[in-house]
Amino acid sequence: MESIKDLFMHELKDIYHAEQQLVDALPKINEKISSSELRSTIEMHLEQTKDQVKRVERVFDQLSESPTAERCQAMEGLLEEANEIMRQDISSEVMDAALIAGQQKIEHYEIASYGTLVTWAEEMQNKEIADILKETLQEEKQADEKLSQVAVQSANERAMK
Amino acid sequence: MESIKDLFMHELKDIYHAEQQLVDALPKINEKISSSELRSTIEMHLEQTKDQVKRVERVFDQLSESPTAERCQAMEGLLEEANEIMRQDISSEVMDAALIAGQQKIEHYEIASYGTLVTWAEEMQNKEIADILKETLQEEKQADEKLSQVAVQSANERAMK
Repeated sequence: MESIKDLFMHELKDIYHAEQQLVDALPKINEKISSSELRSTIEMHLEQTKDQVKRVERVFDQLSESPTAERCQAMEGLLEEANEIMRQDISSEVMDAALIAGQQKIEHYEIASYGTLVTWAEEMQNKEIADILKETLQEEKQADEKLSQVAVQSANERAMK
Repeated sequence: MESIKDLFMHELKDIYHAEQQLVDALPKINEKISSSELRSTIEMHLEQTKDQVKRVERVFDQLSESPTAERCQAMEGLLEEANEIMRQDISSEVMDAALIAGQQKIEHYEIASYGTLVTWAEEMQNKEIADILKETLQEEKQADEKLSQVAVQSANERAMK
């Protein structure tokens, strides 16, 4: 890696792999969720994630590169943590709370990654790419906020019991 | 894990390990940094991280538990990525940019983790613990913002050359 463009390509391939892994993982996570509000939040985010994969492919295309994934170990680790939770025999409420926590770690990984990609795209003076990536960054931040709301609401409901 | 308290303890042990790993890693990362502003940002955050370890120990103490670390694979993965970058023979500017990106992923992991811990502490109606953890959460958010500023500033400086 010799330039910011090289770093950008490396990070883009990393997030491409991360998003693809998520498209596979989210339906399995959703099967374990009990709260209907949380399930619809994750379902909506799955559809967004599919769009985000396509946006990453558009960025590769803009740079005349074919879309390539590079192994994203961080996302593998975060999804492995979610798998560990799902294998446990715990109450539905505790399962939901643990899965929200895991999902927020995933959102924050993506917020950091897209934030960096936007900064580098701007440095490369490629406004079109920066704008595509900003759209995803905004969606990830909103998904995280929505998960925070669901987490607090579920916590309040449990406390009322 | 049967209750929110169990989840809280699991997450607390995870972040305790994560913070301890960071105290070891940050000085090594700083040796590879060229920008004096970035170096002082990381140095300041190292001192904060040491305080954050002590705060986590105070939380264990409040719950009459002895501080125990549980392996945090996510932080191990994120630090392994930083190590990979540091092993590369790249220009100081590209190295700094890559290390900022890695550090922001670390901050975001912690923001997600402390955010969850605060929500669960509030559910446990333990205001004192929630307040301790909120202080750290605030510091992590500020550290991330500061890193974003340094990233943009460095990018602008490179673009001026």
